[in-house]
Amino acid sequence: MSDASARTTPGTSDWRTLCKVRKAAQNASIPEEWKISVPPDTSADVRSVTEDCGLLSPRELDIIDLGTKDVSVLVRLLADKHSGYTSVEVTTAYLKSAIIAHQVTNCLTEIFVEHALYRAREVDQYMVERGEPMGPLHGLPISLKDQFTMRGLETIMGYACNIGKFAENDCVLVEILYELGAVPFVRTNVPQTLMWGETHNNVFGRTVNPYNRKLTPGGSSGGEGALLAMRGSPLGVGTDIDGSLRIPSAFCGLYTLRPSYERLPYHGAANTLMGQESISSVLGPMATSISALKLFTKAIIDSRPWDHDPLAIRKAWNEDEYRLIEHGYGKGMCFAILWDNKVVRPHPPLIRAMNMVKEALEKEGHQVIDWEPLNHIDIYKNAQTILVADGGEEYRMSCEASGEPLITSMSPDEDPHPFDLEVSLVKSLLWQLHTEKRALRKAYLDHWNATTTRTNTGRLVDAIISPAVAYTACPHGLNYDSFYTTLGNAMDYACAVFPVTFVDPKLDLPVDPHDFHNHEDEAFYKLYHPDVFPGVPVGLQLLGRTLEEEAVIGMVELVDAAVKKHAFDRV
Amino acid sequence: MSDASARTTPGTSDWRTLCKVRKAAQNASIPEEWKISVPPDTSADVRSVTEDCGLLSPRELDIIDLGTKDVSVLVRLLADKHSGYTSVEVTTAYLKSAIIAHQVTNCLTEIFVEHALYRAREVDQYMVERGEPMGPLHGLPISLKDQFTMRGLETIMGYACNIGKFAENDCVLVEILYELGAVPFVRTNVPQTLMWGETHNNVFGRTVNPYNRKLTPGGSSGGEGALLAMRGSPLGVGTDIDGSLRIPSAFCGLYTLRPSYERLPYHGAANTLMGQESISSVLGPMATSISALKLFTKAIIDSRPWDHDPLAIRKAWNEDEYRLIEHGYGKGMCFAILWDNKVVRPHPPLIRAMNMVKEALEKEGHQVIDWEPLNHIDIYKNAQTILVADGGEEYRMSCEASGEPLITSMSPDEDPHPFDLEVSLVKSLLWQLHTEKRALRKAYLDHWNATTTRTNTGRLVDAIISPAVAYTACPHGLNYDSFYTTLGNAMDYACAVFPVTFVDPKLDLPVDPHDFHNHEDEAFYKLYHPDVFPGVPVGLQLLGRTLEEEAVIGMVELVDAAVKKHAFDRV
Repeated sequence: MSDASARTTPGTSDWRTLCKVRKAAQNASIPEEWKISVPPDTSADVRSVTEDCGLLSPRELDIIDLGTKDVSVLVRLLADKHSGYTSVEVTTAYLKSAIIAHQVTNCLTEIFVEHALYRAREVDQYMVERGEPMGPLHGLPISLKDQFTMRGLETIMGYACNIGKFAENDCVLVEILYELGAVPFVRTNVPQTLMWGETHNNVFGRTVNPYNRKLTPGGSSGGEGALLAMRGSPLGVGTDIDGSLRIPSAFCGLYTLRPSYERLPYHGAANTLMGQESISSVLGPMATSISALKLFTKAIIDSRPWDHDPLAIRKAWNEDEYRLIEHGYGKGMCFAILWDNKVVRPHPPLIRAMNMVKEALEKEGHQVIDWEPLNHIDIYKNAQTILVADGGEEYRMSCEASGEPLITSMSPDEDPHPFDLEVSLVKSLLWQLHTEKRALRKAYLDHWNATTTRTNTGRLVDAIISPAVAYTACPHGLNYDSFYTTLGNAMDYACAVFPVTFVDPKLDLPVDPHDFHNHEDEAFYKLYHPDVFPGVPVGLQLLGRTLEEEAVIGMVELVDAAVKKHAFDRV
Repeated sequence: MSDASARTTPGTSDWRTLCKVRKAAQNASIPEEWKISVPPDTSADVRSVTEDCGLLSPRELDIIDLGTKDVSVLVRLLADKHSGYTSVEVTTAYLKSAIIAHQVTNCLTEIFVEHALYRAREVDQYMVERGEPMGPLHGLPISLKDQFTMRGLETIMGYACNIGKFAENDCVLVEILYELGAVPFVRTNVPQTLMWGETHNNVFGRTVNPYNRKLTPGGSSGGEGALLAMRGSPLGVGTDIDGSLRIPSAFCGLYTLRPSYERLPYHGAANTLMGQESISSVLGPMATSISALKLFTKAIIDSRPWDHDPLAIRKAWNEDEYRLIEHGYGKGMCFAILWDNKVVRPHPPLIRAMNMVKEALEKEGHQVIDWEPLNHIDIYKNAQTILVADGGEEYRMSCEASGEPLITSMSPDEDPHPFDLEVSLVKSLLWQLHTEKRALRKAYLDHWNATTTRTNTGRLVDAIISPAVAYTACPHGLNYDSFYTTLGNAMDYACAVFPVTFVDPKLDLPVDPHDFHNHEDEAFYKLYHPDVFPGVPVGLQLLGRTLEEEAVIGMVELVDAAVKKHAFDRV
């Protein structure tokens, strides 16, 4: 027993045991027949192991090759019932390949062979029965960063405290992937806190780069990076709050897209710095083939993620923009290169790479100019300060929950790196409120979605009509009502107000008191005397869904026209 | 001298004087010939004063009538060079009408007759010279809430401390309105702090409801409410963080649209709770005619506000959605009515109004059902807690800057209203960071926009190409670089990473040290030895603009194809 473990305080042995048990469970989830003879540590580049180990049949190796070169070709084959490729076969090939990758790079967290094959069979059965694919990702195995919650599985996300917490629901992304016919088949490793550009944690350990195991695959989507570089997945999904898609993609030779905030649906995924909405983490595809970017992004957007995620932006896939309609249709464009951001200068390979791009573009008839950096250090400091605004409170709490130590260096010898930008630590309770608000928005959205069972249109309720204020224009000093308007702000629904009639003391007689909801309700009740308000206008509110301004205008015009047409029916 | 003023502390006389002088300046900005004989306070409904006072000619009254009934008709006349209507004539009519409205409701802040008429002449001149309208709002006078900054004017926004601070720039909305041919002609009153549903402040005093001057017009866009109800503007622009468009519209018989966050461009406008992005204030049109909603919203969106406001969502006006394509094209829809939100029950006039709507819709063949409220009190409390998250710090600082007291009640007799929801006060420094980030994003956007002068395409730079990381895959523990990726996160640019080549020690030779930017730059320089990195991939990053995922994918495919095509040119 070392000195370190002799100093073990009560509780700390628990996290070590917990991690050991969890790691053993992971090992046990690997089928015995898929265990390979792992090359010695001195073997740096392990990429050929997939083929050399002999676990995959020639046909399975062909499948892996296909998916590596162009995932869209693999998808086309899976969608063609006469192609002879089934999801079970493709998923099996990738399960084997992923598990090989894991054994040499430690890239996986959740390994669920039976679950994945069950899903693949379901998808194949669909094809047999209907003769058509389930969706644009029919039968495709997809790997997921260890944030994308799946019902029945833990989401360890680099913290021992998450061991044994099994999810009750799929996150929205996984729901959509199922809708589209995909087959989630493994989840991939991340660093503790998610806020490192490498991939190491106390539960699953360190992920290494298959190009050279002495090197990092980057992070925080480093498990994906290593897996994909090993040809262990045709398409992976990672996340990016500060480079976490792009760093491992750059380090592992992959393609990725980091979409803007809220274009793709993050709701329900586990995350770090929960409730921090100043710089939102985003999800995106990672792959060895470039076709994965459009395939994945278009498929997800075409599924209308805004119907499921209250924060996802309601904005359809625009094929014209994809065709560069706003960029000269891709002809005679002008590119700018940032050679040096005046914070750190790139290494020579990057300068060369940029020169290669410059030349290639110029040969294609494009202009290439220098990009002038502006405020890069200010931008960086601002962003980093935002990202530590809780003073590390969440990290500490997540560690304390299990007793595991906070990892303060990604170095194997645990030497803290001296690099420090001296960001000031601040505290914010806003994040808790964001989290609460997000949950409330989701609940309201689900609630609205559930109205299909109560309409006879086959659709949801189209709009809500309500007061804008509980009363009409009231005496100075007495208006304290935003009870009817706050909903629109907090849920961010597009809504309109329109005038309907005027207070008429003959028609608007006081009513008997009801069972008051609360003190304010009573005060409001007592406020009403028809003689105080005669002739003042009575407006109402129409609420549509988030980003539905046009429809709200159209609907309020329709409502208004209808009201006007029949205004005198009742009087 | 009353007891209250006897207790006046040093400095407080300054704010009183300041406000008195500013109010006198406002009075002085009213042309003498437009001053009317104001009816006595006992005259509650003052709406007929516009006509009765005799200031407007019959033709001017016809113009006001036109704009009141249907602003789009007025706009069509202004856009028709043969109609006989000029912007000067229309603007003059509305200036008179607005100034009449102000004299009876105290609805205005900035009155700039000469400036407005100068602009109207400019627009008319454009028509004479070009024979066509300047834009979809050609010649239209538009009133603006006292938040929409205009170059050369103060933006008092309800605080004495803003007296004497003259803006150097127009806000983005005003820039766009000028582009579209509009004529901003008055600005309208707001409450101190903007966070009241009424309209009163120490500088300009209280705005009253023209339907009944004993009543409030609502707030915080209450100056607009009163002005529009007086037919003093054909179209106004207000804002809404918690009901501020909808309350005065309901109270003053107007139409409004509260769009979702960031659909319309807020950048550069003054605001309360600066940097608070959890529940964003939005701007929207207010008018007596429903056509104003589409007219204004479509015109602003068609102007591509996202080109000018980094937070504005890049989402085109969709005429199909306006035609209710997703709502059965407006046929056989289902509406739901929220009769009572279980917090406060609406007054009888509102119940009746809802019944009128229900009947009208049912007669038109629509289904009308009850809306079941969900969590309304939780939603309300959450939102209110967010809105006081700085513990009132900004209000206090804004008041302390001039010495004026914080208004704690909207009641004329200053009795504090007992109503209190007991929201807990919290503190957050995040808001300061949001403010800083917003300014940095704007600066970067302007910077990018300025590249038109350096390209030969007639457009901006189409995309930025840069490293994703300053180096390639590095040894464990040494990756501390997000200097190249943070830009994308903080600016929220869509960006992609793509592989270009591999490190080749023969080609990628070390270079001599440069003049290091800083310690990190030096450390990174020293990190490079080609022998450490042989054969590892070299990826790059392509950055597009916010919400430009499709174009980024299209561009990275193009770049990638070009790189592949010419990969061996150089080697």
